[in-house]
Amino acid sequence: MGREAIRTAMSVDRNKPASEHQGVHNRWHPDIPAVATIKNGETVKIECLDWTGGQIKNDDSADDIRDVDLTGVHYLTGPFNIETAEPGDVLVVEIADVQPFEDQPWGFTGVFAKDNGGGFLSDFYPQAAKAIWDFEGIFCSSRHIPGVRFAGLIHPGILGCAPSAEILAQWNKREAELVQAHGTDAVAKLPEPRNAYAGAATGDLLAKIRKEGARTIPGRPEHGGNCDIKNLSRGSKVYLPVHVSGAKFSVGDLHFSQGDGEISFCGAIEMAGVITIKFNVIKNGMAQMDMKSPLFIPGPVEPQFGPGRYLTFEGFSVDHNGKQHFLDATVAYRETCRRCIEYLRRYGYSDYQVYLLLSCAPVQGHIAGLVDIPNACTTLGLPMDIFDFDIRPEVPAQRRDMGSCAFTSDHRA
Amino acid sequence: MGREAIRTAMSVDRNKPASEHQGVHNRWHPDIPAVATIKNGETVKIECLDWTGGQIKNDDSADDIRDVDLTGVHYLTGPFNIETAEPGDVLVVEIADVQPFEDQPWGFTGVFAKDNGGGFLSDFYPQAAKAIWDFEGIFCSSRHIPGVRFAGLIHPGILGCAPSAEILAQWNKREAELVQAHGTDAVAKLPEPRNAYAGAATGDLLAKIRKEGARTIPGRPEHGGNCDIKNLSRGSKVYLPVHVSGAKFSVGDLHFSQGDGEISFCGAIEMAGVITIKFNVIKNGMAQMDMKSPLFIPGPVEPQFGPGRYLTFEGFSVDHNGKQHFLDATVAYRETCRRCIEYLRRYGYSDYQVYLLLSCAPVQGHIAGLVDIPNACTTLGLPMDIFDFDIRPEVPAQRRDMGSCAFTSDHRA
Amino acid sequence: MGREAIRTAMSVDRNKPASEHQGVHNRWHPDIPAVATIKNGETVKIECLDWTGGQIKNDDSADDIRDVDLTGVHYLTGPFNIETAEPGDVLVVEIADVQPFEDQPWGFTGVFAKDNGGGFLSDFYPQAAKAIWDFEGIFCSSRHIPGVRFAGLIHPGILGCAPSAEILAQWNKREAELVQAHGTDAVAKLPEPRNAYAGAATGDLLAKIRKEGARTIPGRPEHGGNCDIKNLSRGSKVYLPVHVSGAKFSVGDLHFSQGDGEISFCGAIEMAGVITIKFNVIKNGMAQMDMKSPLFIPGPVEPQFGPGRYLTFEGFSVDHNGKQHFLDATVAYRETCRRCIEYLRRYGYSDYQVYLLLSCAPVQGHIAGLVDIPNACTTLGLPMDIFDFDIRPEVPAQRRDMGSCAFTSDHRA
Amino acid sequence: MGREAIRTAMSVDRNKPASEHQGVHNRWHPDIPAVATIKNGETVKIECLDWTGGQIKNDDSADDIRDVDLTGVHYLTGPFNIETAEPGDVLVVEIADVQPFEDQPWGFTGVFAKDNGGGFLSDFYPQAAKAIWDFEGIFCSSRHIPGVRFAGLIHPGILGCAPSAEILAQWNKREAELVQAHGTDAVAKLPEPRNAYAGAATGDLLAKIRKEGARTIPGRPEHGGNCDIKNLSRGSKVYLPVHVSGAKFSVGDLHFSQGDGEISFCGAIEMAGVITIKFNVIKNGMAQMDMKSPLFIPGPVEPQFGPGRYLTFEGFSVDHNGKQHFLDATVAYRETCRRCIEYLRRYGYSDYQVYLLLSCAPVQGHIAGLVDIPNACTTLGLPMDIFDFDIRPEVPAQRRDMGSCAFTSDHRA
Repeated sequence: MGREAIRTAMSVDRNKPASEHQGVHNRWHPDIPAVATIKNGETVKIECLDWTGGQIKNDDSADDIRDVDLTGVHYLTGPFNIETAEPGDVLVVEIADVQPFEDQPWGFTGVFAKDNGGGFLSDFYPQAAKAIWDFEGIFCSSRHIPGVRFAGLIHPGILGCAPSAEILAQWNKREAELVQAHGTDAVAKLPEPRNAYAGAATGDLLAKIRKEGARTIPGRPEHGGNCDIKNLSRGSKVYLPVHVSGAKFSVGDLHFSQGDGEISFCGAIEMAGVITIKFNVIKNGMAQMDMKSPLFIPGPVEPQFGPGRYLTFEGFSVDHNGKQHFLDATVAYRETCRRCIEYLRRYGYSDYQVYLLLSCAPVQGHIAGLVDIPNACTTLGLPMDIFDFDIRPEVPAQRRDMGSCAFTSDHRA
Repeated sequence: MGREAIRTAMSVDRNKPASEHQGVHNRWHPDIPAVATIKNGETVKIECLDWTGGQIKNDDSADDIRDVDLTGVHYLTGPFNIETAEPGDVLVVEIADVQPFEDQPWGFTGVFAKDNGGGFLSDFYPQAAKAIWDFEGIFCSSRHIPGVRFAGLIHPGILGCAPSAEILAQWNKREAELVQAHGTDAVAKLPEPRNAYAGAATGDLLAKIRKEGARTIPGRPEHGGNCDIKNLSRGSKVYLPVHVSGAKFSVGDLHFSQGDGEISFCGAIEMAGVITIKFNVIKNGMAQMDMKSPLFIPGPVEPQFGPGRYLTFEGFSVDHNGKQHFLDATVAYRETCRRCIEYLRRYGYSDYQVYLLLSCAPVQGHIAGLVDIPNACTTLGLPMDIFDFDIRPEVPAQRRDMGSCAFTSDHRA
Repeated sequence: MGREAIRTAMSVDRNKPASEHQGVHNRWHPDIPAVATIKNGETVKIECLDWTGGQIKNDDSADDIRDVDLTGVHYLTGPFNIETAEPGDVLVVEIADVQPFEDQPWGFTGVFAKDNGGGFLSDFYPQAAKAIWDFEGIFCSSRHIPGVRFAGLIHPGILGCAPSAEILAQWNKREAELVQAHGTDAVAKLPEPRNAYAGAATGDLLAKIRKEGARTIPGRPEHGGNCDIKNLSRGSKVYLPVHVSGAKFSVGDLHFSQGDGEISFCGAIEMAGVITIKFNVIKNGMAQMDMKSPLFIPGPVEPQFGPGRYLTFEGFSVDHNGKQHFLDATVAYRETCRRCIEYLRRYGYSDYQVYLLLSCAPVQGHIAGLVDIPNACTTLGLPMDIFDFDIRPEVPAQRRDMGSCAFTSDHRA
Repeated sequence: MGREAIRTAMSVDRNKPASEHQGVHNRWHPDIPAVATIKNGETVKIECLDWTGGQIKNDDSADDIRDVDLTGVHYLTGPFNIETAEPGDVLVVEIADVQPFEDQPWGFTGVFAKDNGGGFLSDFYPQAAKAIWDFEGIFCSSRHIPGVRFAGLIHPGILGCAPSAEILAQWNKREAELVQAHGTDAVAKLPEPRNAYAGAATGDLLAKIRKEGARTIPGRPEHGGNCDIKNLSRGSKVYLPVHVSGAKFSVGDLHFSQGDGEISFCGAIEMAGVITIKFNVIKNGMAQMDMKSPLFIPGPVEPQFGPGRYLTFEGFSVDHNGKQHFLDATVAYRETCRRCIEYLRRYGYSDYQVYLLLSCAPVQGHIAGLVDIPNACTTLGLPMDIFDFDIRPEVPAQRRDMGSCAFTSDHRA
């Protein structure tokens, strides 16, 4: 009597190209064939590739970050049919655990080059950069960013159920309209057949998915997807709208840690690994909760710092050129991040090092005020206990040799 | 031996019109005469009027909210000269306590009418509304929003040092440019002589301040001001840039509690009361920290809920018309707030009640993802323990009689 | 409309001897006349003397501590009749706030002399000592123990309902048996007419109470009383058994802060002040909950340090003579406290200073293991953030000039 | 470049009897041969058997608990030589992770029979009982105790460095004196050759260790050992005194979770698994810290409940016969535990079920007051969020069908 192990619903082979896996896909589409079935009430393990499918190496060059191919990213595992789930239901996904693979105890954080992906601070930091993080149990540290060590707030960057055909059409329409309005495809990732994979789909079905399938880059209100919410960590319960029969749930893009905003885009500590999930279906839940987007309740084991251990920066919607914006929280948060970079310079860190750190350490990005026209105010709380020296303002700062993050072979200092 | 009481650096008389006080002002200007001097290292009490200067009554009508005169608001106490503080220094302000007046144990939260102030959700909720909150020690509850009771995250909405003449000129210029660019003065509050008060200033000086003085409505990066950061609560240390000799520190707009965003504009639980502050000067601190905006470290006694006690809503930068916006955290947060309102309806609350509640209860508004083009993703964490019934999604909801918040005499249902 | 202030159910006059107050008493007895009536559901303020009734001065001598008269201590305010409360009910006492008097912002911690009260470590530290603490809002600090400053975990040391005559008789019997068994009255405080006060009682009634009234020194299982639980702080709900009609609730012995164990006996930061309480009656609650002793739920605003900010000491039930005791948690905790004193010496503190500090700072005393015969194991968690220097073991320690706590005029070094 | 995996310093084979392992031992002795060497600064994995070495089965009978052989328990892995560690040093042990074996996702909690081991409440609950716990990632639940599910506070029950010959002699002497004083060997576990294992030791050495080796049941002040401190969880740093060259560190007795006191003796959720540890040596640390017993700093990822989510019981040193004890924290904690059992009966739980639950769930056992003669006061905080129903006192209780824990085949109801 007694269970011997938790079933692995789908495994991956990291020695095989991501594109050759039957159990992964990198587009959202209702017709991607389910790879396995999971019972209502069942707990399973699901293995995941890292979001680039293995394009990034554990070395000291950011050339791989610079050259990453973003048409093929986000190799999600799934989709899974959840028994009894039907459109209108809510799928409750309890994230019982997330772990890196035992034989790959490391991850990476990257700053994409401005002309290939970019990030939140591309205007200031246009070149590619990288930090490798070593994992020791719950902790991580990086040879590229000395002086910090912290417990991961480990979580999946992407999870969600498949869109219905109607919702998919709506996505493609509204994002195309944005591209049209801005006159540039730099503002959204429209469907792209190149490097699109759809698991077991072949022939005409594959061609259809390649043509119509929504990209995985943005999260979307109707199903969550790539929401990149750092608090979807161990123990969280996520309530997901179901749009197709069987739910067709997929998950991937595992993060060992991430800060609010994931500002450098490849900004979490990206990793391959295993997620353990318990599934439950609430029949007709969408109507009961008037649910239009996912809800969640975070887990109980987030790394804890007392409130008095966060050094907190303020930013307002006046940009670096002194231009006043109207209640723009995005501009405010960009300025807030910059305030933190400016502060940490005094310890010897380079701006790129801090940019990488703020992307992946568990910083708290809050919307403080959004009504005092014309200034939005946001804050960024930096946990002081991740540093092995005292960063309080009243303690005299000492400049240290902080080495360097990884740059490209053609980096311009 | 032994101190008998902490000195009150400035008191107010709530029976007198705000405009008749010598120790309050409602504009920012370097030339407002200091009302008192505080020693470096000293702890003092400072009394504050509520931000409307007593315009709002403890009753069941929102007529006073509808008719509030916004030209005269934010009666700040000060400015205070802090001994030894000079431009370039950093003034460390430790908020040792904030308390309502003992004989006025109540506060108010308002939704401004769309055509007089408005708020973050004015497009959906254009009418004025009000809730009165009764205080019992650390707790508050409202006859206008039954079913909730919570400990206040008590704090000042506004604190900061006076701008220099250069900074003031810069503020007026950039905000005027915004008004010009938008072609409407609805986007910023430019200097307005009407109802401008400057404490002891008279004659030409008063006329100058009335003409040039910056409005208190927005917080501003150079000094903080009306930042409306809920976490500047008991025990917080705020590091403020000093721009004029003596710092000329002012404080006011006390809040018994506030949620991230303070979304209904008059959205905190507004109150009159007393703040206890310890002042310290860090000489030449601005250069040492490369400080361009205030920093702070929150206090250790914030109301604590475990992470697993926050029901958290997700929102994305697709607006209510289905229009896709580009990485717009403001749009995302608006949608996030609306998701929460939709959810809480099932218990019998009206939308206005929830709008008021989200403004003032200690909800956590986070920027989750800001790089997955084109969708910004924000979250709003609602502490479940402020309700006296169980709001978890898996618990069947029961509609209750939730009464009503206060509306205007001409309210249109 | 709207309440003007919370009613004060009983005030005290600190200029008058404690013994002349009608509203205070220092014995437990069912017949002490009620001083006021409080409604079921009402919130009131209650003023309290400090536990010595003003015997201790804000100065630098511990003579007053040495000479304190313990026959008269614990001037409780009450008893109050709570409407509708009857024997068998449970009285729910919500501690909405506790504050020192505004004109007396200081308190004291004492080590009693071994021959007058003593304390947990009297065998090691037999002389009297004292520290005066100054309050600044939520914070306290002491000229007698430099280098620390912390937020108070403010609470009443004593609260409870009157015993019935039967319970009182049981108390007196079992404590007398202990005295008899040990052959010394040093193990319990039996009834003592000297300095016994019973509020408004006079004549025969007073004589009876003086003769029978239980001392306030120990807490007792049947009603709580002097439980000295540091976590009964702001926002706590305490569920108290009711033994007499009207409950006859009393409260006093306010503490600005206390550590687990309150080890120096006069060990909290003792103060006079005001407590705000909301009362509710659960009819027949004792049977429903099978209640034999009080329960409580702590409040949400305790000072918060992350778990990783507690330097924690271990102690076992082997005493300082190397003698092995059998699962004795009291011996174990004594050793645990001594380990902490030994550790903190390296910063320049005297043992008496640390003894005082551990008594009153919010240290966490846990029972870790009580089954691994013959060793009980207890732990003491010391919050590192109360120190203004870094006390982590890996940081080289520097001896400082820590001055001295207050000693008696006849102190032997 | 980049590490492929963390080295496993010692593995175990659960298909082999514990007694046949070369890498485990169940006595403390300085001469047990080291099984491997670990570098100063190195992080390694160490596999551990469950404390009974596999005597307990995942079934519904407590016969195995009743019949457990306690002469052979605590199969510790080690001892390990830590490079550079010498007597007088401090060994810093950072617990980077603890995990059950992937193919054995379950553990057990037992109540030992009074005549074979017993426990803290043996006088009330003398029979053997058992609960099996299933693990799902960070969570556990039991078919034997329905209605609860919680995140584990996973940790090792035992860790420590080998005693020197002098310390070992001292242990044996003082524990023998206790046995002599009490006139029964029920108060301590003296050296016992039967079932003693010492890893690779053979011949005369083995005979010597069998004769002299200290039992693992009690923790001891000089090295920690079986301290059963629930907070030595993921991320904790433990500072251990070094008494022999190489430190000879051992670890074992992994617990998925435990409550303060571990009251039923086999009271944690006992499991086999893997611990990941980073080792560092502080040279001459014992003198620097005046260290007589281990110190530790807990990790940052303990399951978090807000303070307002603990239902807390009070107990005093008056025993169940009404006898008054003198400041006896052990008696007080026993009463405190009984108060909690009495309370939870109303939901349909049996006393044995609650006894098991309090042993293993993360309850907080505090020493509240230890100076108010003659009553010690202790508290037990029960996290309400581990229950799937509302256990607050004010919510009417409903009796449920709670099934049964496992009992023996000869159980007497």
